[in-house]
Amino acid sequence: MDPKLGRMTLKEWVAIESDSVQPVPRFRQELFRMMAMAADMLQRLGARVASVDMGLQQLPDGQSLPIPPIILAELGSDPTKGTVCFYGHLDVQPADQGDGWLTDPYVLTEVDGKLYGRGATDNKGPVLAWINAVSAFRALEQDLPVNIKFIIEGMEEAGSVALEELVEKEKDRFFSGVDYIVISDNLWISQRKPAITYGTRGNSYFMVEVKCRDQDFHSGTFGGILHEPMADLVALLGSLVDSSGHILVPGIYDEVVRLTEEEINTYKAIHLDLEEYRNSSQIEKFLFDTKEEILMHLWRYPSLSIHGIEGAFDEPGAKTVIPGRVIGKFSIRLVPHMNVSVVEKQVTRHLEDVFSKRNSSNKMVVSMALGLHPWIANINDTQYLAAKRAIRTVFGTEPDMIRDGSTIPIAKMFQEIVHKSVVLIPLGAVDDGEHSQNEKINRWNYIEGTKLFAAFFLEMAQLH
Amino acid sequence: MDPKLGRMTLKEWVAIESDSVQPVPRFRQELFRMMAMAADMLQRLGARVASVDMGLQQLPDGQSLPIPPIILAELGSDPTKGTVCFYGHLDVQPADQGDGWLTDPYVLTEVDGKLYGRGATDNKGPVLAWINAVSAFRALEQDLPVNIKFIIEGMEEAGSVALEELVEKEKDRFFSGVDYIVISDNLWISQRKPAITYGTRGNSYFMVEVKCRDQDFHSGTFGGILHEPMADLVALLGSLVDSSGHILVPGIYDEVVRLTEEEINTYKAIHLDLEEYRNSSQIEKFLFDTKEEILMHLWRYPSLSIHGIEGAFDEPGAKTVIPGRVIGKFSIRLVPHMNVSVVEKQVTRHLEDVFSKRNSSNKMVVSMALGLHPWIANINDTQYLAAKRAIRTVFGTEPDMIRDGSTIPIAKMFQEIVHKSVVLIPLGAVDDGEHSQNEKINRWNYIEGTKLFAAFFLEMAQLH
Repeated sequence: MDPKLGRMTLKEWVAIESDSVQPVPRFRQELFRMMAMAADMLQRLGARVASVDMGLQQLPDGQSLPIPPIILAELGSDPTKGTVCFYGHLDVQPADQGDGWLTDPYVLTEVDGKLYGRGATDNKGPVLAWINAVSAFRALEQDLPVNIKFIIEGMEEAGSVALEELVEKEKDRFFSGVDYIVISDNLWISQRKPAITYGTRGNSYFMVEVKCRDQDFHSGTFGGILHEPMADLVALLGSLVDSSGHILVPGIYDEVVRLTEEEINTYKAIHLDLEEYRNSSQIEKFLFDTKEEILMHLWRYPSLSIHGIEGAFDEPGAKTVIPGRVIGKFSIRLVPHMNVSVVEKQVTRHLEDVFSKRNSSNKMVVSMALGLHPWIANINDTQYLAAKRAIRTVFGTEPDMIRDGSTIPIAKMFQEIVHKSVVLIPLGAVDDGEHSQNEKINRWNYIEGTKLFAAFFLEMAQLH
Repeated sequence: MDPKLGRMTLKEWVAIESDSVQPVPRFRQELFRMMAMAADMLQRLGARVASVDMGLQQLPDGQSLPIPPIILAELGSDPTKGTVCFYGHLDVQPADQGDGWLTDPYVLTEVDGKLYGRGATDNKGPVLAWINAVSAFRALEQDLPVNIKFIIEGMEEAGSVALEELVEKEKDRFFSGVDYIVISDNLWISQRKPAITYGTRGNSYFMVEVKCRDQDFHSGTFGGILHEPMADLVALLGSLVDSSGHILVPGIYDEVVRLTEEEINTYKAIHLDLEEYRNSSQIEKFLFDTKEEILMHLWRYPSLSIHGIEGAFDEPGAKTVIPGRVIGKFSIRLVPHMNVSVVEKQVTRHLEDVFSKRNSSNKMVVSMALGLHPWIANINDTQYLAAKRAIRTVFGTEPDMIRDGSTIPIAKMFQEIVHKSVVLIPLGAVDDGEHSQNEKINRWNYIEGTKLFAAFFLEMAQLH
């Protein structure tokens, strides 16, 4: 396929307001249109395509909305070839020009080689790059070096509603012939150097409620004679992490993989300009001074962030209230081999311990609202070697071997349900601004990314 | 005036969303409407009324909003009579039905003899009771036993912006003929026994801002390498008070008046059913077990309350955000002879000390948003004796001689600028829930309170 044609398709796709985060019928219709357009394109490519109806999404307000179908598609079923399954999503984060977009977020606009538009890098561009790579073989009337499968959803930004259910159901059908799973839904850590991602952190999100009564108090009328819930909560939250970022929950580091010299060397090999990173993030000073320490604390050590408090006075101005019931929110990013349910027990025990020492008459309830496992792959798997070779061919360089500090739960899910090797091959540059205003993908990344996937097919055929 | 008519006016007044705390044009317009309605009512009563324009309120964000006019009104100028000046306010605390109100906060709703609505007890009900008492003499075509003046403002809940300036200016004009000042802006400490208040605590309201950058961060992408502002803020707030309510700011107790045996006896004389107090407040357990300790910690010892945090995640649900800039809010209730500017220095020095030990790269700014002095009166002044007699007449009992844990800064201000005796004659019951959800005034309190003020006028005429 002619790259220009690929860019035209990206323009068409970005023009669809396939926002899955705002649960309103208009965007949901756009999502259905988006999935139909993609299914049609795959069909024209010669794939067998199933658009699987996933039923209704129940909303917190009691209403429901239809879930866009998940596309399962197959191209080739030669038993002598390896089968690579590509995962992607075609829904996007909300975007509104009034929030600071310099161009219409739903009109793909090229400025200085950058293609601006919502979904350009997350994840419509990479999905199209993969399709473009496949269609290049078709256009050249060459056999595909590998069998290709696609699983494409439209609810990723809303938590991949229904995806796990489908993967579980298709484990021994659609996924039975799959050898490798490729995801391309994150970014490089540099503007010019490609990367391969072999791990992501998990996340345990906690809520700790401290309650005296449901109503608030006036601080003049009751201040001085109460165990105030905010005093308890601030003490609880203050017991979690010290000023150097070290988590104070006993036992929390017990299962963290020991650091080896070999692993340190992998961080040394990565290109990261700290000064540029600091400036582009608008941060005066990080907790650590070296590249290696920073990468390790983003990727291979857990971190604890306090997000906020629900139920306290949070508006501008000066209100003299003693909140009667408050909920503190914090989360711990998990790394191999931390276990979600062990962490839940450690955090709960720690908070109960701190709380009991206060002799407060308030009630405390700890709950884990979300528990997502960390994921790590074996970087000596076939497809990691193939991806490295393809990057050398297309970009003339070794890739940065990176992890992602955020959670990409589908990587872990595929690994656990399908039991096949998963790799993340990002195409976008570090400054693409996914989820942010003025999201873009560079034209260079989009075109070279298409070439990278084509080269990857050829390398996979050789190594399989 | 017919009490039913009085209740109807209270309904009209409560319907006005005269919220002075949230600095937005909509509420400010409501405040202007409120003040105009009150001025009109006083005029119809035959008073000479001046609505004094107080200019603009400068907001922290650089914007400004008009300050509602302060009403000065006079009824009678007989030089043989004493002149009593009544202070009240018609602005209210914020109220939102979603916060747990069982009825619309701006629709006065009677349930079992209780009149629910924002401002019903604080302070629209008592202001109307005073007006009703005056209009009762008018309706009976009797001469008023005393000359009456009114000073009514609309910014009390926002710190009485501009009031002091006006009192200072009117010191030798409007206030020159005033002999006594009556305020009715607090509550009894019982559900059925009236009280007279001779002291109030002051208040120092602090904001402590911790900033990394203006934008928030994603906790996956940055968690682990930042000095997170929330961790700093939680540590700062956690350094302020221990679990027994003891304030940890060095030197804060130095100027608190020493306790004598005689003073302890005054607390012993007060009727307070701890069990009932606990139940009506829906509190499982207070910090202290005896009546005397509880009264002392509400009235004669300082207290510190943490109100909340601005800029953090405060909504329901689980958002993985690292807030970039957060503002913690807390206040210290001051008692004789603590000094506002000394407290400001002590708190600032303490927070700077705690913050510097954290070695954080964030910026911290401490500011005192509000500094209000404590107040204490001589309980042998004429109007204290008159109020006691009036209470005996209307309620058939001795009043509780109490202080108020809240701040009524105007008491101190009137005492210092006008140099006249100030008394607080509360009308509302202990469970009225001022500043809280489901604020109410009992119908009984509202009607007997009107009678009490009328009897007070007669006693004042005798004793003056």
